Amino acid sequence: MNKKYDLDEIEKLKQSVYDANMLLHKYKLAIHTWGNVSGITKDRRFMVIKPSGLSYEAMKASDMVIVDLDNNVIDSELNPSSDTPTHTLLYKASYQIQAIVHTHSPNAVAFAQAGKDIPCYGTTHADNFYGSVPCTRDLSVEEINGEYEHNTGLVIIENFKNNNRDFKATSAVLVKEHGPFVWSTKNPIDAVNLALTLEEIAKMAIKTIIINPNALHAKQELQDKHYLRKHGKNAYYGQRPKK
Amino acid sequence: MNKKYDLDEIEKLKQSVYDANMLLHKYKLAIHTWGNVSGITKDRRFMVIKPSGLSYEAMKASDMVIVDLDNNVIDSELNPSSDTPTHTLLYKASYQIQAIVHTHSPNAVAFAQAGKDIPCYGTTHADNFYGSVPCTRDLSVEEINGEYEHNTGLVIIENFKNNNRDFKATSAVLVKEHGPFVWSTKNPIDAVNLALTLEEIAKMAIKTIIINPNALHAKQELQDKHYLRKHGKNAYYGQRPKK
Amino acid sequence: MNKKYDLDEIEKLKQSVYDANMLLHKYKLAIHTWGNVSGITKDRRFMVIKPSGLSYEAMKASDMVIVDLDNNVIDSELNPSSDTPTHTLLYKASYQIQAIVHTHSPNAVAFAQAGKDIPCYGTTHADNFYGSVPCTRDLSVEEINGEYEHNTGLVIIENFKNNNRDFKATSAVLVKEHGPFVWSTKNPIDAVNLALTLEEIAKMAIKTIIINPNALHAKQELQDKHYLRKHGKNAYYGQRPKK
Amino acid sequence: MNKKYDLDEIEKLKQSVYDANMLLHKYKLAIHTWGNVSGITKDRRFMVIKPSGLSYEAMKASDMVIVDLDNNVIDSELNPSSDTPTHTLLYKASYQIQAIVHTHSPNAVAFAQAGKDIPCYGTTHADNFYGSVPCTRDLSVEEINGEYEHNTGLVIIENFKNNNRDFKATSAVLVKEHGPFVWSTKNPIDAVNLALTLEEIAKMAIKTIIINPNALHAKQELQDKHYLRKHGKNAYYGQRPKK
Repeated sequence: MNKKYDLDEIEKLKQSVYDANMLLHKYKLAIHTWGNVSGITKDRRFMVIKPSGLSYEAMKASDMVIVDLDNNVIDSELNPSSDTPTHTLLYKASYQIQAIVHTHSPNAVAFAQAGKDIPCYGTTHADNFYGSVPCTRDLSVEEINGEYEHNTGLVIIENFKNNNRDFKATSAVLVKEHGPFVWSTKNPIDAVNLALTLEEIAKMAIKTIIINPNALHAKQELQDKHYLRKHGKNAYYGQRPKK
Repeated sequence: MNKKYDLDEIEKLKQSVYDANMLLHKYKLAIHTWGNVSGITKDRRFMVIKPSGLSYEAMKASDMVIVDLDNNVIDSELNPSSDTPTHTLLYKASYQIQAIVHTHSPNAVAFAQAGKDIPCYGTTHADNFYGSVPCTRDLSVEEINGEYEHNTGLVIIENFKNNNRDFKATSAVLVKEHGPFVWSTKNPIDAVNLALTLEEIAKMAIKTIIINPNALHAKQELQDKHYLRKHGKNAYYGQRPKK
Repeated sequence: MNKKYDLDEIEKLKQSVYDANMLLHKYKLAIHTWGNVSGITKDRRFMVIKPSGLSYEAMKASDMVIVDLDNNVIDSELNPSSDTPTHTLLYKASYQIQAIVHTHSPNAVAFAQAGKDIPCYGTTHADNFYGSVPCTRDLSVEEINGEYEHNTGLVIIENFKNNNRDFKATSAVLVKEHGPFVWSTKNPIDAVNLALTLEEIAKMAIKTIIINPNALHAKQELQDKHYLRKHGKNAYYGQRPKK
Repeated sequence: MNKKYDLDEIEKLKQSVYDANMLLHKYKLAIHTWGNVSGITKDRRFMVIKPSGLSYEAMKASDMVIVDLDNNVIDSELNPSSDTPTHTLLYKASYQIQAIVHTHSPNAVAFAQAGKDIPCYGTTHADNFYGSVPCTRDLSVEEINGEYEHNTGLVIIENFKNNNRDFKATSAVLVKEHGPFVWSTKNPIDAVNLALTLEEIAKMAIKTIIINPNALHAKQELQDKHYLRKHGKNAYYGQRPKK
């Protein structure tokens, strides 16, 4: 590669990726060293991600690993998360994605293991994710035995393309028999907050199924209303500058 | 409006509404900025409610928003909770309601998403809520696309009217595909305590359904006994002045 | 009554009943002011029990209430727990019972609301309770409308008598549509520890039912083995003086 | 016995077995005094294990009990865990086992009580345990009434032999109607970390069953991929010395 990254920007990104990884740990979205968060530079040429297999207690901001979008490690001592090729592919798939988080939170993983989308059963879901949170098809034997983590990214993208999903509106996916990837159009902390939201709606959905195995998706109009009152052009949730 | 509120009363109400919102957060009845608590002045002309979308960590008592019962913001910088029109309508529906809380606690939300009342399966429920905690019908497309939060209040009131429910005895409701609203005839802290109680009985009810999907409602006489020993004229639970 | 209690013994009993109530609270076996623990004097003439409806935070050892076994309050300012007549009746039913605890722990309550015994599915149960933890029949309308708390005690005793249960070996019961009562042949702290055990095995049993709705009771011989290796004449669990 | 242990090694082993027992307690893998961890000396002649029935709060490293592999207590005041004969038999069954932990964690116990293997539903499982985590057959009446804890070890070994399981790859088992035993080829702390992992995948599996009672095992190739990327010759997970 010819041009290098902005050192100041990279240091700030390392810090925010580190902070987001620690928040993932604080939220208990994964035990042990599981889970990882990444962020991307403004020019979308470099990604910063958690190192592989390091304990959250021992990790420092300076341990975050820089890679380019072809998964080459740049100026870093440690190995990046083994999920790195899935992250980089998602950043290439949508220019809107600014940060990605992968967790093993138990309720979201359960839907991935069950091979089922998380249905939009109500407004808690609709406020945050537009439509069902999709579960991918399973990888073929060839995809597993080939560039596995890269192919994981490909099946996510295939699911979004085939179903005309918008990466911004539906900012999460369940990789079948694996677990959730969640992304933010803002920053790494926001991505982790969305991963917590995903876990909460997955938990609510499981309880809903226990009470009523035939529960229906919320009406499309209710889904539209809630998603748009928070995220649409005329959003009226939260605080905004008054004219 | 011509006459203003009592400044001293409003300051105290802001503090108690703030304290109740922080208790909701401490009890983990909602993650993130979700959930809100309101209280009403003695003359029932002004409501104080949590601002929209502010984090519990950043919030101060002085941030609580004053609105009149027509949902006009009074002397406040911040936007009130987007659920404000539901709150004001409930205060108008029953002069007994002194405080209202809305949460996204997962077990209560699950019943709302399943579209089912919480049956009174036992004395834990009967001690606190008289009869089933009802789930409303879902809103029509017109109601969703119209004054949505106002219409949410209307379906609650419709449910109570059609079923001859007493707002004092049954101090909670599940809005279908949304979540619980709980109210108190005393004060905001009491409303939050009732919201925790509701979450606990919803949790117990889900576990009851797992063990015995055909579990029956507690006998009407048992429901009467328990509700009345705590809340009736001849209540003998707790401490009372001795003659 | 003619003869009074031993003041020193009563003070110690108040302290141990208080400590046990605080442990119940620490273990989260009940929210709010729910739950209560009692203990009995050596001559079995006086019981000390938690006052009714006081918050755990505000409660002091000196607030514990003394009653005789006919439920008369003795030298105490506060009202005793409304469950007092159930406690006193159990102490009369078995001279082995030294302390009693009543909780609203959600998994045990769920079995009570489902109207089902907790089956002995494995050694965690068998180590601590001999056989199923029984659920009583429901009270008749007459029993509910009569001396309710006293009649609650009667249906417990009826269940133990009709099924030849031993109060020492099966030291817990579920009152149908209500919740668990647990007792100890040792002291109040031990009773609360057993109540925590009961909640844990109820939790395990619910999960067992989810995995395998047709799960069988553990073999009688396994139940005997585990109960007796901890509680039998030739017990070899724990530390004992060596000869 | 003629030759004694290395005092320095035994002291270190006592400390690490103590630390691991305290971690089990911190992780809440068992309540009360339940659960136990052991480790073995390099020459595989002596095992160090938690004493029976002591509270985690009161326990010290010096309380850990030394036994030889014939279950004789060596130079120790306290009784070893009643599960000692199960531990020693496992150490004899596989020279790779360096530490063993037994817990009563509720989700793993639920599978044991349900008499079912934990299916490998996804990569969280596959990363850590190769294939299903097996549940043993139940013990016969003769086995229960005979050398019970020894026979418990025998049914574990029988299950591994009959199914050609590898103690290193599948480092956990569920004893039917009892609970999990987990072991490590490294050290006691690692064994406890695996016991936490087992509890987490059991929790995920139960939730998976709720969502989809017909959920399938993950493809064999996916199981191979995940287990081998962490544990195989060409493992690329975590940090390794760079050439």
